[in-house]
Amino acid sequence: MAGRLIGLGVGPGDPELLTLKALRLLRASPVIGYFVAKAKHHAGQGGNAFAIIEQHLLAEQQRLPLVYPVTTEKLEPPLTYEGVISDFYDTAAAQVAAHLDVGRDVAVICEGDPFFYGSYMYLHDRLSDRYDTEVVPGVCSMLGSAAVLGVPLVYRNQSLSVLSGVLPEDELKRRLADADAAVVMKLGRNFDKVRRVLRELGRDGGAHYVERATMREQRIVALDDVDPMASPYFSMIVIPGQRWNG
Amino acid sequence: MAGRLIGLGVGPGDPELLTLKALRLLRASPVIGYFVAKAKHHAGQGGNAFAIIEQHLLAEQQRLPLVYPVTTEKLEPPLTYEGVISDFYDTAAAQVAAHLDVGRDVAVICEGDPFFYGSYMYLHDRLSDRYDTEVVPGVCSMLGSAAVLGVPLVYRNQSLSVLSGVLPEDELKRRLADADAAVVMKLGRNFDKVRRVLRELGRDGGAHYVERATMREQRIVALDDVDPMASPYFSMIVIPGQRWNG
Repeated sequence: MAGRLIGLGVGPGDPELLTLKALRLLRASPVIGYFVAKAKHHAGQGGNAFAIIEQHLLAEQQRLPLVYPVTTEKLEPPLTYEGVISDFYDTAAAQVAAHLDVGRDVAVICEGDPFFYGSYMYLHDRLSDRYDTEVVPGVCSMLGSAAVLGVPLVYRNQSLSVLSGVLPEDELKRRLADADAAVVMKLGRNFDKVRRVLRELGRDGGAHYVERATMREQRIVALDDVDPMASPYFSMIVIPGQRWNG
Repeated sequence: MAGRLIGLGVGPGDPELLTLKALRLLRASPVIGYFVAKAKHHAGQGGNAFAIIEQHLLAEQQRLPLVYPVTTEKLEPPLTYEGVISDFYDTAAAQVAAHLDVGRDVAVICEGDPFFYGSYMYLHDRLSDRYDTEVVPGVCSMLGSAAVLGVPLVYRNQSLSVLSGVLPEDELKRRLADADAAVVMKLGRNFDKVRRVLRELGRDGGAHYVERATMREQRIVALDDVDPMASPYFSMIVIPGQRWNG
């Protein structure tokens, strides 16, 4: 009988934000798959999700690194980021399937939640019609950020817009103008653009910035004091909905 | 020294979706606060969040029920829902503060996440300037729903719109028309309106419906087969973003 594919949300960074279910399935899985950047892997490291759960692993559990061939470097034509990364997910799915085919369950660990911008979904889409799957939802970074900032995110019947900082400036502006509450993820090199849009909309005053929420290296900084050249990918802007006294 | 107010996310329903941190703080808190409807309380029950964590409580931990005076019943003027509920949160905050003032930590348990439509936020807003607070984020019902449906929610740089079914039909339509991926919460009596809007937009085909995700009574039904008179408040429609093969 084929093994089971498990998408395992491990929370936003604090190892204590793992669920009891994720811990149980992690311990019961003979193979632990994890995505990791090439440079980190070559340095003998396992990526952020791996760091969260490493303390729980036993020696006999097999580590299955799924090593990204590229991160942000320039590619020579005819290579494109989309093409290279699509081939990579095909390869990663085959690596995982090799274990499933001989009856070994594979837990693929994911920071935050597997279906909320998680790379696991690209394996799920490739494998879920052939194998039994189970997805363990996790605490996502957006909620981890609101918690450490101490700001309620959405009141009552407000709408929440979750946006990527990668979006073009005009689309960001349009969507933020229409948002009751909003979270802008994937800031990194997009920080300056996002801050400019918030200032133009007059919403920078109510916006909160946090880097690596719930991790040891967490930093909460005023929006005006962020160095736009040094904002990491794992940073976020949280714009809470208008307070309702209830 | 005053006690500490803790907003404790306990996940969407499955008791195993509690985090290690929530469990630790739950066990360490002398007072456990929980919101509960009047009828349930009078029947000796503790509400949904309470059911999730009851197995972990010790006899010596004090239960602090915060009993909603109204749910959906009609009120005689000059009473309004807003006024009654605001008074209730004032009273609940005073009940919690009475424990904090004598040095007892109070953990207020919340289904899902405390800052994502959680009633805890109304206590937080009333008490966080006077007492130390800590918020433990939780797995929210939206991610619990995507997990049990087995559908990846947001790919890559897609935007996610989280909407309340209570919104007026035209606003729902406008927001859904602009959404890459969307989740409509708080369906209940609003289900028929939401389904009609999705049909008009031609997005009903890609929409998934789930009741009480991750709970024992969970039900997954095709959108066409939902009885609009019987859809509970704890139901949700999930409209995943367009698949990106990555």
